[in-house]
Amino acid sequence: MKNATRRGASMKQIHLTRPSPHYWRVTFNHPPLNIFGPEMLPQVNEIITAIETEEQVKVVVFDSAVEGFFLIHLDFLAKLDDLAHLPPGPTGLHPWPEMLVRLSRSSVVSIALIRGRATGMGSELALACDMRFASREKAILSQFEVGAGFVPGGGPMAQLSRLMGRGRALEVILSADDVPGDLAELYGYVNRSLPDADLDAFVDALATRIASFDKQTIMDTKRLVNVASLPPDMEFESGWNACVASMARPATQKRIKSLIDRGFCKPGDAENHLGDFVGQL
Amino acid sequence: MKNATRRGASMKQIHLTRPSPHYWRVTFNHPPLNIFGPEMLPQVNEIITAIETEEQVKVVVFDSAVEGFFLIHLDFLAKLDDLAHLPPGPTGLHPWPEMLVRLSRSSVVSIALIRGRATGMGSELALACDMRFASREKAILSQFEVGAGFVPGGGPMAQLSRLMGRGRALEVILSADDVPGDLAELYGYVNRSLPDADLDAFVDALATRIASFDKQTIMDTKRLVNVASLPPDMEFESGWNACVASMARPATQKRIKSLIDRGFCKPGDAENHLGDFVGQL
Amino acid sequence: MKNATRRGASMKQIHLTRPSPHYWRVTFNHPPLNIFGPEMLPQVNEIITAIETEEQVKVVVFDSAVEGFFLIHLDFLAKLDDLAHLPPGPTGLHPWPEMLVRLSRSSVVSIALIRGRATGMGSELALACDMRFASREKAILSQFEVGAGFVPGGGPMAQLSRLMGRGRALEVILSADDVPGDLAELYGYVNRSLPDADLDAFVDALATRIASFDKQTIMDTKRLVNVASLPPDMEFESGWNACVASMARPATQKRIKSLIDRGFCKPGDAENHLGDFVGQL
Repeated sequence: MKNATRRGASMKQIHLTRPSPHYWRVTFNHPPLNIFGPEMLPQVNEIITAIETEEQVKVVVFDSAVEGFFLIHLDFLAKLDDLAHLPPGPTGLHPWPEMLVRLSRSSVVSIALIRGRATGMGSELALACDMRFASREKAILSQFEVGAGFVPGGGPMAQLSRLMGRGRALEVILSADDVPGDLAELYGYVNRSLPDADLDAFVDALATRIASFDKQTIMDTKRLVNVASLPPDMEFESGWNACVASMARPATQKRIKSLIDRGFCKPGDAENHLGDFVGQL
Repeated sequence: MKNATRRGASMKQIHLTRPSPHYWRVTFNHPPLNIFGPEMLPQVNEIITAIETEEQVKVVVFDSAVEGFFLIHLDFLAKLDDLAHLPPGPTGLHPWPEMLVRLSRSSVVSIALIRGRATGMGSELALACDMRFASREKAILSQFEVGAGFVPGGGPMAQLSRLMGRGRALEVILSADDVPGDLAELYGYVNRSLPDADLDAFVDALATRIASFDKQTIMDTKRLVNVASLPPDMEFESGWNACVASMARPATQKRIKSLIDRGFCKPGDAENHLGDFVGQL
Repeated sequence: MKNATRRGASMKQIHLTRPSPHYWRVTFNHPPLNIFGPEMLPQVNEIITAIETEEQVKVVVFDSAVEGFFLIHLDFLAKLDDLAHLPPGPTGLHPWPEMLVRLSRSSVVSIALIRGRATGMGSELALACDMRFASREKAILSQFEVGAGFVPGGGPMAQLSRLMGRGRALEVILSADDVPGDLAELYGYVNRSLPDADLDAFVDALATRIASFDKQTIMDTKRLVNVASLPPDMEFESGWNACVASMARPATQKRIKSLIDRGFCKPGDAENHLGDFVGQL
């Protein structure tokens, strides 16, 4: 089983490795941008299903193998026709918000190790994790969507409001601007920002530590934090529906087309300075 | 319409200007204290009604033209007999909490630019805004009311509990003390405190940026943050009722009278050091 | 009554003193560790009952007379057979979470002055207080329980999720690690961390200040913050039940025994470095 996964990994953009049976690692490797192609959706689903079903795993760390990017937004240059019409999952949610909710609710502890840009779906994936640690120098988080004319689809309205309070959540989402490591820590967007040189060792030590604890105790404790802190699924559903509705409007399509004409979704200034880029339209 | 408003503005304490059709500015100009006179209540109502009804506006910034004061508490030297008995608005709330709730729920993005003192109604107005940015050197926020013997009427119990958590909210409200820029940022009372020299340019750039985005997208996104973050109206109603009840108690009337005898509501040490002042009674 | 309490105090581990009728002090004095012996449960109950029933008291400060320790976890070396089976209090909760809830709901303002270690029940008691101020150099907070194999019983899942957001709450509880003063302030675990030399004067001034305000106003205001911020009792009940269930599992008993064999609950490295200690098992 381990070997099969390893063989398959090289053909995918998301790699699952197992430093130990209790501690897994999920690495985004879709150079040069770690942009979210529609083909990655079933890969995320496969990994979350493995997390949900393999009994020994206690901790999973999400990180990136691509310089400058943790995981970014949907690839608007790919064929997206089917994406909005994927059949809902068991909860009734569209597969993307459903996967996010499943990750948050799973009994495994998930940690996002954020180095480089995490925007759009990348930010949403990080927010669905149980904890987020960022490189002080190299992490940039954002929800850029409002700047591109559409409502974010993976629930940052629900998540950020609860993590950082209404005022800062509205600023992050409505400004659609880049949030560097220091500010992300001040706002509670991430647990902590650490010096880039210390980040890997810190996260590895934390994951190893939690993986040494009793799984049943971890599960029962996390379940009670979930009761106190997770948004109701309904808010993810409303967010997704608002996203789909906004995408269908001609004004949005025009805005996205204009962004694409100027370099959106391609390596270069647009993606390297996405906050500035959407503010200049 | 623009000219009419501009002509009218000079006779009022609250000025509405329109740097652009998408970006408005509301400036408190009631020297020397920017104290909240009862005559300002219909002016606030008029401005919030304009914000609710004019279709093009996307962002409104609230600021002050008075040195040292953003906007402070009710003027207890004015004739206040009618204030507690104003007829309720459409939501059933008293006009003051109703206006605050309407501002928060409006589809326009509201930003408080806080330089000088924001206490009592001034703090409550800032809390009803979607975002708050403060001068690190010159902003002081507070809810001084408990120190003057009465319960705050505009809902800071509901708002601050959600913005900064129970412990810090209880400290701010029950200590009734001044909160300077640095601490306001640490506690999440404001989004950020900026060096005074940078504050105006920062807020103007943010407002201009958001005003360049699509209005429908802003509206739909803000509505979902509201679902996740706004207190139920009922908490504003309970807060207002507790305020009115506390005002009617002889002990409170005596305390307020004693404060007035010592300079409350007049220019000078009382208002310049309100935190110390209410703590010395 | 005052004299009686003072005479009794010397035979107890928890001392109640009354600097003034409005301002009380509760001091944990159970050297060398301020460990929570089962005999302290009725003492806490007695003090909370006094807080609830004496009409003049407005503020109570909880502090420690033991160097290095504010208040720590249950003494697993004591006879604990009866503890899990104590009859529930009036709310239906087990006496420990019930006392915590009663303290939070009481009309008196409670302030934890944290110097030294506050872990387990000590952290839970601090979280039940209305405010928490910590020594920047000498305070260490933690919920170590998951590292010892059991679910915390006094509701930190409910409390910390609301104070610091889901991500940081999960880190604090699931890492089971020490949280020093600086980090406790960044995360909102405490209101503020102050230089150790300033802490006593700061808390005393704040307590004296609030004790000078009107009791009815304090009560009515706190009640409204409670509405906005207190977890439902049900979450404390679920947390307690999960704790009891986890304690009954052989894996947990084995883990606790192993900790005891290595120095847990005794003066020395285990308790002085509890975070490291539970991580090395």
